[in-house]
Amino acid sequence: METDKPILLSGIKPTGAPHIGNYFGALRQFVEFQTIGTHQCYFMIADYHALNSVQNAGHMRELTRELVLTFLAIGLNPDKVVIFKQSDVPAHTELAWIFDTITTMPYLMRAHAYKDAEAKKHEISVGVFNYPMLMAADILLYNAARVPVGQDQKQHIEYARDTAEKFNRIYGDTFVVPEEYIVPDVAVVPGIDGQKMSKSYQNTIPLFASRSEIEELVMAIVTDSSGDRPENVYQIHRLLKSEHDLTPLYEEHKGKYKALKEALIEDLDAFIKPMRERYAEFAANTTVVAETLEKGAAAAQERAKEKIEEVRRAVGVA
Amino acid sequence: METDKPILLSGIKPTGAPHIGNYFGALRQFVEFQTIGTHQCYFMIADYHALNSVQNAGHMRELTRELVLTFLAIGLNPDKVVIFKQSDVPAHTELAWIFDTITTMPYLMRAHAYKDAEAKKHEISVGVFNYPMLMAADILLYNAARVPVGQDQKQHIEYARDTAEKFNRIYGDTFVVPEEYIVPDVAVVPGIDGQKMSKSYQNTIPLFASRSEIEELVMAIVTDSSGDRPENVYQIHRLLKSEHDLTPLYEEHKGKYKALKEALIEDLDAFIKPMRERYAEFAANTTVVAETLEKGAAAAQERAKEKIEEVRRAVGVA
Repeated sequence: METDKPILLSGIKPTGAPHIGNYFGALRQFVEFQTIGTHQCYFMIADYHALNSVQNAGHMRELTRELVLTFLAIGLNPDKVVIFKQSDVPAHTELAWIFDTITTMPYLMRAHAYKDAEAKKHEISVGVFNYPMLMAADILLYNAARVPVGQDQKQHIEYARDTAEKFNRIYGDTFVVPEEYIVPDVAVVPGIDGQKMSKSYQNTIPLFASRSEIEELVMAIVTDSSGDRPENVYQIHRLLKSEHDLTPLYEEHKGKYKALKEALIEDLDAFIKPMRERYAEFAANTTVVAETLEKGAAAAQERAKEKIEEVRRAVGVA
Repeated sequence: METDKPILLSGIKPTGAPHIGNYFGALRQFVEFQTIGTHQCYFMIADYHALNSVQNAGHMRELTRELVLTFLAIGLNPDKVVIFKQSDVPAHTELAWIFDTITTMPYLMRAHAYKDAEAKKHEISVGVFNYPMLMAADILLYNAARVPVGQDQKQHIEYARDTAEKFNRIYGDTFVVPEEYIVPDVAVVPGIDGQKMSKSYQNTIPLFASRSEIEELVMAIVTDSSGDRPENVYQIHRLLKSEHDLTPLYEEHKGKYKALKEALIEDLDAFIKPMRERYAEFAANTTVVAETLEKGAAAAQERAKEKIEEVRRAVGVA
C-alpha cells in the first residue's frame, strides 16, 4: 500500500442498513476517491461513535458486518484503500482523552449536537457531548489532509482544526491542521415521502433492495397531483439519469404517474442489481469481512502508532 | 507475582513533590497494604488525570520520575506490588470512552468537581468534567475489590459503582461492583500555617526535605500564643509520636515554643532521614525508574487486556 500520498479520511457510523441516500451522499464519493488515486484513503467504520446509540452487541456486530460488505459491494478494494474499524485502534480514544484535557467546557458546549439537545431538553450522553473530541482524534491521528464532509458537518472539521492548533500552541508543532473539503454538489436525496431520505424517517430505499422491495417502495412514493410531474419520483430518478434523458420520458408520460413509477423501478433495479449481486457474493464468503478488517486494522494501527507516540512524547507521558 | 488475591488499586497524580501530608494521608497506607499482603496491590501514577493541570512535557516527566522514586523510597517493592503509569495502559482511556456512551450529561454534571467549578464560574476542562469516567475505568479495569480513598473522595467510588451497575444492566454481567474502603483514621495533616497541608497553599513540609529545609520550615510554623501549647507544632509532632510520649515533653517546655520546635526538628529529621537517603540512592541509580515502570506496565497491561477484551465482546466491537 502506498503511503507517500496525502491522507484522506472519512468515517461512517454502523447504525443502520445503508440506503441510496447514503450512497449518493457519501459512499459514491468514496469509490471516486479510490479511482482518482490522488490520496491514500482511510475509510473508517466509526463503531465507537455508534456506541452512543447502538447498545446491543449482536446488533453492533451485524451492522458492522453490513457496512464492510457495503464497502466491498460498492467497489472499494482493500488492496487500494484502508477499510478499518475505529475500535481496532485504541489510539483514537487515547488521543480523545488528551484533547479533553486541553478543551474547555464552554467551548465544547457550543457544539451543535449539545446545543440542539439542550434546546430540546433531551438527555444526551457524555459520549454525544464529547463526540467532537473523538472525531478530532479520528482525523488528526492520521495527519489527514483532506476530510470530505457535507455542509452540515462543517463544524466537526472546525473542532478538529481548533484542537490541532491549540495542541500545537501548548506542546509544539505536532498536528497537521486539516483542510475541510466540502464535497461539492452532493445530491440531497428525497425519501419516498418527499422528506430528506433518512433511516429515522423510515422513508428509505435500501441500497441493496431486492426487485420486489424496489417495486413496493417506488409504488409507495407519495405523489402530488397538483404539478406537471410527480416531483418525488422525478427527484429520485434524477439521481440515476440526466435531465436530458428524463425530459422526453416525463413529457411522454405526463400525468401518468404509474408509468413513470414503472420506469423508475426499471432504472433503480438496473442500478442496484449489480451491487446487490456483489453484496450477496461477498456475504456468502465466510472469511472476507474478517480479512478486510484485519488488513485494515494492521494498516491503521501502524500509522496511528507513529502519531500517538509522537503525541505521548509531546505531552511528556513518554 | 501472585494474581489469585483480590485486587486493591489506588492512584496518585504526579502533580507536585510529595509532602508529609501525602505520606500520612495515603502513601503510608500503601506500604501497609504491601506488608499485610491480603491483596494484590496496584499503585497507579495517574498521569492522564494529571494532564488536566500539568501541561509541560519536561515537567510531567520530572514529576512522574519523582513519584516512582517516592514509591521506592517509602518502601514499596516492585517485586511485591504493581507500580505502573496510567498512560502505559491504553485500555484506561478506551474504557472511559465506552463509559461516556452510557452516561448521561445531567448525571455527570452532578459530580463535585463540576458543581464546584460552576459555582465559582471557573472554566474547567472537559478532562476535569470527564474525570469520574476515567477514574471508573481505572478501578473497573482491574476488577478492583478494594479502593482505599479518603472521605472526600467517596463520590468517585460511587461513580464507579453506578457505572459498573449500569454497564452490567445494559450489556450483561461484566464488572465487579467495587466496595469503597474509607481509610480509617487518616490523619488530617496541618501545614506550617495551620491550614490543611496542601501544595496549593504552599504550606508543606516535603517528604524528603533536607535537614536545613526541615529547620527552616519548622521554625516558620505559625504559632498562637493564646493556648497552653503551640497547636500547629503539636499536630505535626503527633504524626510522629504518641500522645503518651509527647505529653511530658510539652509539659516540660510549656510556653517554650523554640525548644518544642527544636524537638520537632529532631523527630522530623529522624523520621525523614532514612527515606531521604533511600530516595537519593534510588535517584542515583540510572535504570531503576525505567525498570520499575516497565515491569509494572507489563503486569498492568496483561490484566487490563483480559478485561478490555471482555468489555469489547460485551458491547459488540469484538
